[in-house]
Amino acid sequence: MSMAKIRLYVDHPLGAGQSVPLDRDQAHYLFGVMRQGAGAPVLLFNGRDGEWLATVTEAGKRGGLLSCEEQTRPLQLPPDLWLLFAPIKKARTDFIVEKAAEMGAARIVPVQTEFTNAERIRRDRLQAHAVEAAEQCGGTFVPEVADLVPLSRLLADWPEDRRLMWCDEALVGGSAGLPDGAAGPWAILIGPEGGFSEVERSRLKALPQAVPVSLGPRILRADTAAVAALTLWQDQLGDWR
Amino acid sequence: MSMAKIRLYVDHPLGAGQSVPLDRDQAHYLFGVMRQGAGAPVLLFNGRDGEWLATVTEAGKRGGLLSCEEQTRPLQLPPDLWLLFAPIKKARTDFIVEKAAEMGAARIVPVQTEFTNAERIRRDRLQAHAVEAAEQCGGTFVPEVADLVPLSRLLADWPEDRRLMWCDEALVGGSAGLPDGAAGPWAILIGPEGGFSEVERSRLKALPQAVPVSLGPRILRADTAAVAALTLWQDQLGDWR
Repeated sequence: MSMAKIRLYVDHPLGAGQSVPLDRDQAHYLFGVMRQGAGAPVLLFNGRDGEWLATVTEAGKRGGLLSCEEQTRPLQLPPDLWLLFAPIKKARTDFIVEKAAEMGAARIVPVQTEFTNAERIRRDRLQAHAVEAAEQCGGTFVPEVADLVPLSRLLADWPEDRRLMWCDEALVGGSAGLPDGAAGPWAILIGPEGGFSEVERSRLKALPQAVPVSLGPRILRADTAAVAALTLWQDQLGDWR
Repeated sequence: MSMAKIRLYVDHPLGAGQSVPLDRDQAHYLFGVMRQGAGAPVLLFNGRDGEWLATVTEAGKRGGLLSCEEQTRPLQLPPDLWLLFAPIKKARTDFIVEKAAEMGAARIVPVQTEFTNAERIRRDRLQAHAVEAAEQCGGTFVPEVADLVPLSRLLADWPEDRRLMWCDEALVGGSAGLPDGAAGPWAILIGPEGGFSEVERSRLKALPQAVPVSLGPRILRADTAAVAALTLWQDQLGDWR
């Protein structure tokens, strides 16, 4: 077994004997911050070819080179699950993206609702958080963070075959659950701190693919609700079983 | 229905006609930060008497007085569930306490494991986080934050009637679940980022009250694991049904 602990996401093909270049930021992290040098073992993944044990062959200030040795884990795709959430304060938005990647969402979609404060997001920064979370949690896949999109537009054109679990605060204490064994594409929708508007609520209720779910008798913050909803879904329909 | 939005935890009896004094910090928050004055409606709870609608009768810089009018919610105690966790970096420790209060743990116990970094905690600061979370989530109960205690001591004297759900990283991908309908006192134990030591793992395995549980195929951060484990427990054995 390899003793390599450092895991890096690289946007480069991985395979036996493959040379993999590092960009400046990665070189700074690996050689500067983590004090690794030539010969150091590193685990690499790219979201497509699984996880590979690689060895540093060149270490420089502005870049570096690694050589792939053997595959240590096969690619494990998450279930076809999207997480839709209304961006909130910066730290909690970062947190939701981190948690979605850890919990195994395949795609992260920030949505603008009537009561959402955020007018814009920094997609690149959120994507970097998803990468970091994947590096940390041992995943071999990085969920894509989509651009901010109005919820109304998303619902108007909702894919027919994708079920939508939405966390309805009005159901607090109610007993709605997920349908047994309903596999296939899904999405989870977490509302903003102020809840959904009446218009949004009616739209969701009218959507045949939508399944309202209760998250207990207390009102959860959006970041807590995201982890709780992902847990329920993964446990009942996802890859936790 | 009351339009009061502000909820305050007070350490004072609540009942019809009861006068409730505010301390300096609360007065600063309510009158200074939130700009409320005499006549303003406020929701109060003390962890014992449910939630009460009260009206400000005196507003001052160093204190204030409220008068209770009517009970708006009965006391709702959480299930008899403790959350045990190994303190980690400050922000994530605060987060775990906040989440435990939101998710309905009755008691929060920071534990020192072999791989825990923290030597001490600020119990008063963590308790304040639990109060704030209860104010926010609409709860009428505030979980007590206990002092930091070594896990070994806790396990050596573990209550016979309290079951212990521990999240075993070695079970990743395995299929251990909670026993159906096992009501009564429970605790959830979340390990530190470095996992449990071999000695701790053996102790836990030998404890008849302990139930190992898997949290899926990815390695979760301690704060994510806490919310996920609380979700599984509340959904299967707690007050979410």
